[in-house]
Amino acid sequence: MNKLDETIAKIEGLDIKSMRLARERQDQLTKPKGSLGVLEELSIKMAGIQRKPLPEVNKKVIIVMAGDHGVAAEGVSAFPQEVTPQMVANFAAGGAGINVLARHAGAEVRIVDMGVASVVDIPGVIDKKIRPGTANMVEGPAMTREQAIASIEAGIEVAEAEIADGADLLGTGDMGIANTTASSAILTVFSGADLLHSVGRGTGIGAEALEIKREVITEAIRANQPDKRDGLDVLAKVGGLEIGGLAGVILGAAANGVAVLIDGFISGAAAMVAWSLCPESRSYMIASHVSVEPGHKLMLDELALKPMLFMNMRLGEGTGAALASSLVEASCKVLSEMATFAEAGVAEKSEDLSEKGAGI
Amino acid sequence: MNKLDETIAKIEGLDIKSMRLARERQDQLTKPKGSLGVLEELSIKMAGIQRKPLPEVNKKVIIVMAGDHGVAAEGVSAFPQEVTPQMVANFAAGGAGINVLARHAGAEVRIVDMGVASVVDIPGVIDKKIRPGTANMVEGPAMTREQAIASIEAGIEVAEAEIADGADLLGTGDMGIANTTASSAILTVFSGADLLHSVGRGTGIGAEALEIKREVITEAIRANQPDKRDGLDVLAKVGGLEIGGLAGVILGAAANGVAVLIDGFISGAAAMVAWSLCPESRSYMIASHVSVEPGHKLMLDELALKPMLFMNMRLGEGTGAALASSLVEASCKVLSEMATFAEAGVAEKSEDLSEKGAGI
Repeated sequence: MNKLDETIAKIEGLDIKSMRLARERQDQLTKPKGSLGVLEELSIKMAGIQRKPLPEVNKKVIIVMAGDHGVAAEGVSAFPQEVTPQMVANFAAGGAGINVLARHAGAEVRIVDMGVASVVDIPGVIDKKIRPGTANMVEGPAMTREQAIASIEAGIEVAEAEIADGADLLGTGDMGIANTTASSAILTVFSGADLLHSVGRGTGIGAEALEIKREVITEAIRANQPDKRDGLDVLAKVGGLEIGGLAGVILGAAANGVAVLIDGFISGAAAMVAWSLCPESRSYMIASHVSVEPGHKLMLDELALKPMLFMNMRLGEGTGAALASSLVEASCKVLSEMATFAEAGVAEKSEDLSEKGAGI
Repeated sequence: MNKLDETIAKIEGLDIKSMRLARERQDQLTKPKGSLGVLEELSIKMAGIQRKPLPEVNKKVIIVMAGDHGVAAEGVSAFPQEVTPQMVANFAAGGAGINVLARHAGAEVRIVDMGVASVVDIPGVIDKKIRPGTANMVEGPAMTREQAIASIEAGIEVAEAEIADGADLLGTGDMGIANTTASSAILTVFSGADLLHSVGRGTGIGAEALEIKREVITEAIRANQPDKRDGLDVLAKVGGLEIGGLAGVILGAAANGVAVLIDGFISGAAAMVAWSLCPESRSYMIASHVSVEPGHKLMLDELALKPMLFMNMRLGEGTGAALASSLVEASCKVLSEMATFAEAGVAEKSEDLSEKGAGI
């Protein structure tokens, strides 16, 4: 059994008993039942993931994976491919959006070279390069099936190393010129969505380039015929190295009982790959924000994940995951730190005036 | 001129020059233009509010105001009135939801007795009691016009004291059994909305009590005939002491060039009162979340404010404002701390592939 299969075999359902105990405690805290909404639900999900009734978030790590895409040659991005290594250097120097937002949230950032086209020799960047960029998916598969497996296994290794080092909440992030093209292709294959809905402007291409991007994706899917029932086939044919790596981060987190925050559109594509390989992995995913990229909402609907932040963001890098990591931490603190009705000497609800039924 | 009129006279439009400089800097940061969405817009708004191109958030204070409502006698809440002072004690002891979330966000909490029905003698609670609870608005005005003015002026004083003490971001919060009834009445008067849309279950009343609540509000508006063009008349006749106080906090923040985060439904009612007294005060408001209480979305639409957090919360106390305070702080850090394209040596966009037009 390879590392990928071993990891998938380790992924269990959430711990129902811890979730029940967390729910019972939430209902004793000094607030109307259910009135903290998603914060309550998140704390209960975290209890199920961490398999303890009082989950904690003590070390948050955002894993930003970078890779290049052969399809960039088709003119599908507003930025040149040299921006991928330049932004990796910017991450390492601490000057990018993800650095600022992770510092603000008290999260650490790991930067991983999964397949930048040029040589990356920057201190602090984890080298997991599978190959220097994918092939152009219009002309054939983006990578081989073996490389797809290797990219996922590299992601699992990164997640495992962080968890071994104490991380109890992971977040995903991405960098890679043209990676909304690969992500749109993945979404289109898995969901069958019309390209009018699954393909957007990415970093900000104009109408003409958007038309080219749709044609390129149509052609890539026609040429490669990815099998939607086989996540590895989809990843290999129309995916990306950073997308495979992030799918591995998600599977590695799930296999080790750690929650993983899904950032935006590219992370969502990785989540779809992870989900297709192991449906139970979805129980460990937490959605952060909904992106401006139109396909992102479709993706979240497919995954049945509800985002918390509506901020018209579309940067990627893990910026949405960083902001949301603070909300997950808050949910655990609410559960642990709020006083109960009994502790605070606060009167409970008059039952005769109350709404009957669940959660209120 | 009384303090209220003096305060309103001090409220100016935002500083356009600082906003332009902030926008110019945002467009030089290492990200596609506009890709941090609301975080970018917030930082620019903060520049206009603080009248400097690099706004800062160094001291966040959530002001939680408590008051009782005579209309509670009509059976419009699921909780007994004694809960108001019990929760004030819980706030002072640090055990309530707002305490946990403010601590998490690095914000301080101030607790103000604007009009709790019973005697509140708790260290740390600021005493601004105008009267021990409002009168039952079904039988006549909730308070006199003089008391309405006094409640707003007390709120202005609280805001001014915090700002003098270094606060550069305020948030509003509320506690008061039956205060969704007063807030729904305020919303109904100002917006003309149907009671089916402006009245909800508050802390969780059942269908029968909800019907009573709608009848009570209908009767209170019929009996008092509040004049929607006169915010003081609306506040006096169907408002609340904590609602007046929070309107004062908003006006006091605006008059002193400080942004104020609007929490949920009760804070939204206070924002409507502040807006009716001084339309320009709206420029200083930042919406935090959208509440489960159905009228809240209506209110935000009336105020043309866009919430950032969709978390199905309905607790009040300033809990949404506390969570959002971290986002406002993040927006200022993005503007100040991110590297520019020139600093980071990152290539800019290929203009020929770009979307033409504003903000992208």
